[in-house]
Amino acid sequence: MENDEHFMNLAILLARKGGGNVNPNPQVGAIIVNDGRIIGQGYHEKYGEAHAEINAFKSCIESPEGSTIYVTLEPCAHQGKQPPCFEAIIKNKVKRVVIGSLDPNPLVAGKGIEAMKKAGIDVSLKVLEKECKDLNKIFFHYVTQRTPYVMMKYAMTLDGKIATYKGQSKWITGEKARQKVHEDRSRFMAIMIGVETLLKDDPQLTARIKNGINPIRIICDTQLRTPLTSKIVSTAFEIPTIIATSNENIQKHQAFIEAGCEILLVSSISKHLDLKDLITKLGEREIDSLILEGGARLNASALKAGIVQKVQAYIAPKIFGGKEAPSSVEGLGVEHPDQAYLLDRPQVAYLGEDILLESELI
Amino acid sequence: MENDEHFMNLAILLARKGGGNVNPNPQVGAIIVNDGRIIGQGYHEKYGEAHAEINAFKSCIESPEGSTIYVTLEPCAHQGKQPPCFEAIIKNKVKRVVIGSLDPNPLVAGKGIEAMKKAGIDVSLKVLEKECKDLNKIFFHYVTQRTPYVMMKYAMTLDGKIATYKGQSKWITGEKARQKVHEDRSRFMAIMIGVETLLKDDPQLTARIKNGINPIRIICDTQLRTPLTSKIVSTAFEIPTIIATSNENIQKHQAFIEAGCEILLVSSISKHLDLKDLITKLGEREIDSLILEGGARLNASALKAGIVQKVQAYIAPKIFGGKEAPSSVEGLGVEHPDQAYLLDRPQVAYLGEDILLESELI
Repeated sequence: MENDEHFMNLAILLARKGGGNVNPNPQVGAIIVNDGRIIGQGYHEKYGEAHAEINAFKSCIESPEGSTIYVTLEPCAHQGKQPPCFEAIIKNKVKRVVIGSLDPNPLVAGKGIEAMKKAGIDVSLKVLEKECKDLNKIFFHYVTQRTPYVMMKYAMTLDGKIATYKGQSKWITGEKARQKVHEDRSRFMAIMIGVETLLKDDPQLTARIKNGINPIRIICDTQLRTPLTSKIVSTAFEIPTIIATSNENIQKHQAFIEAGCEILLVSSISKHLDLKDLITKLGEREIDSLILEGGARLNASALKAGIVQKVQAYIAPKIFGGKEAPSSVEGLGVEHPDQAYLLDRPQVAYLGEDILLESELI
Repeated sequence: MENDEHFMNLAILLARKGGGNVNPNPQVGAIIVNDGRIIGQGYHEKYGEAHAEINAFKSCIESPEGSTIYVTLEPCAHQGKQPPCFEAIIKNKVKRVVIGSLDPNPLVAGKGIEAMKKAGIDVSLKVLEKECKDLNKIFFHYVTQRTPYVMMKYAMTLDGKIATYKGQSKWITGEKARQKVHEDRSRFMAIMIGVETLLKDDPQLTARIKNGINPIRIICDTQLRTPLTSKIVSTAFEIPTIIATSNENIQKHQAFIEAGCEILLVSSISKHLDLKDLITKLGEREIDSLILEGGARLNASALKAGIVQKVQAYIAPKIFGGKEAPSSVEGLGVEHPDQAYLLDRPQVAYLGEDILLESELI
């Protein structure tokens, strides 16, 4: 079974190549092996196009008959934009199917497996299941919750500051960390900030890397205070931009709509956007993933509303100090340590001189 | 030379066993090897007692004549509490000496090496030099600067808070991290806090581990506000306690002295202790190492005074939030990111669920 893990690992590497292009579909990789030799491989490359298994069969350098196929996610069993993959597996007379993670979608789960078993195919399940699931945290979350997987991202100094007491934050982290930020923007479907951050930084929120795919930009702007002259509004014809607001003034809306923005009306709770309502509406629009880039008050509200799945903290080896220097999550905060928002054991990565800690909320 | 690194690594492991017991001497390990077999080993176990080389010779299971001795630090060449080690090496007819790091002490450097070479011994230098130097950062600092090596330590949440907005901080980190804190307290010669922290937390600052050696406790207390009823003062007969103050009121001093504390008069700068003067005085008392445990204002002052060598940040995977929740370094802080205190690339360790980042100031 050691070989199973080896090939599944390769399938995982393949699957990752779809990152950023397949949402809201999962990233899936497939490897076809005959007598210990890889005879075909494929991954789900783009939303709406062929699934991993189909691409793997297409790439085969010899007949897949009698071979083993390794696939990171249970082959789909429903007719979507593509025909169900399990049929292709049966048709190609594969002898054995090794599956990483099961499909979380109740429309699909188990059906293909049953059909393949009936067709006499040997099916092994849950090989590197955790790794395969981790590949598609977003997909698993979105399929089961129908709201975007929200990653709160911030960059801070080793003493926990996201800016100096003068509000300056350019730059806290180095090149490599910033590169990773842009890669993530390309992988996630949307990015969200509060209007305070927009007013302060006038950011673009684009994915500034080669072949980067810009995320949909979402501004939380209860009162509709976003300036029409901001960088985001003035590029709204090129990059999809949503202004989430509770302000129902149609005339005010009109100016944004004419600038290329979309106005998303969201209910309010005590003069702030109801973030639960907002992400439900974003989920309905098939936005499966969202980077939350603050500021500190929106971060606090998002945690309180329970809409955050993951925290991504970039930590730069420097100290700003300052009682008045802002930190990543403000608002009122918890009163007692026992009431803290808990995260799982962080994953650590070095990015140049900086450290990235990534952790999911428990 | 691969073997040289192998044996030097073992010598480093041995040297570490002296951690906490040898200050202000360095940690040193020695391995004696004949024909690829280890025939003796030793380390500097306790301040004032035999050096590593002598212990290694004593432990030899056969004659060290013609053998190679690996020693993490250049054998000493001055008559201190112990005779110079290079003489023992010559006397024992060792054929080769492999040295990790050179001695930073100008009284010693190079002299022993010269004598050994004259005696016909083959001397190799700087094997795993960085690792051997890292073993004795404290010693290297103290020997060259004559002030304690100061490590600023704090525990914070992933959003950079050292307490909730209500000031509660028990507990931020878990068992394993707190265990490590007590080990470090045992390794360092002194621990220092500001009187604000004493008033707020009434801590003991002891090393609560098996065979833990309590550090000398130092309170920065410009105005002498420490309550005589505090835990620290009431245990001052058992555990050395220094109150650093600029208050010259002899009568006030008397009460602390009667409680077993020592009063250290330190000059003041704009109504605060002159921390440079303080650490110079601590250095004169042979305090080679000091853990600075805050609070946030003392941390800021210490950084500003340039007395901090290392930062140790424990990071717990939880979020407190709160605009008013304190962070590790407060004071005014820097105005512009370019003015930040810079640290080198942090070393990362997992301690249970928590992360420890350790980094030296550049």
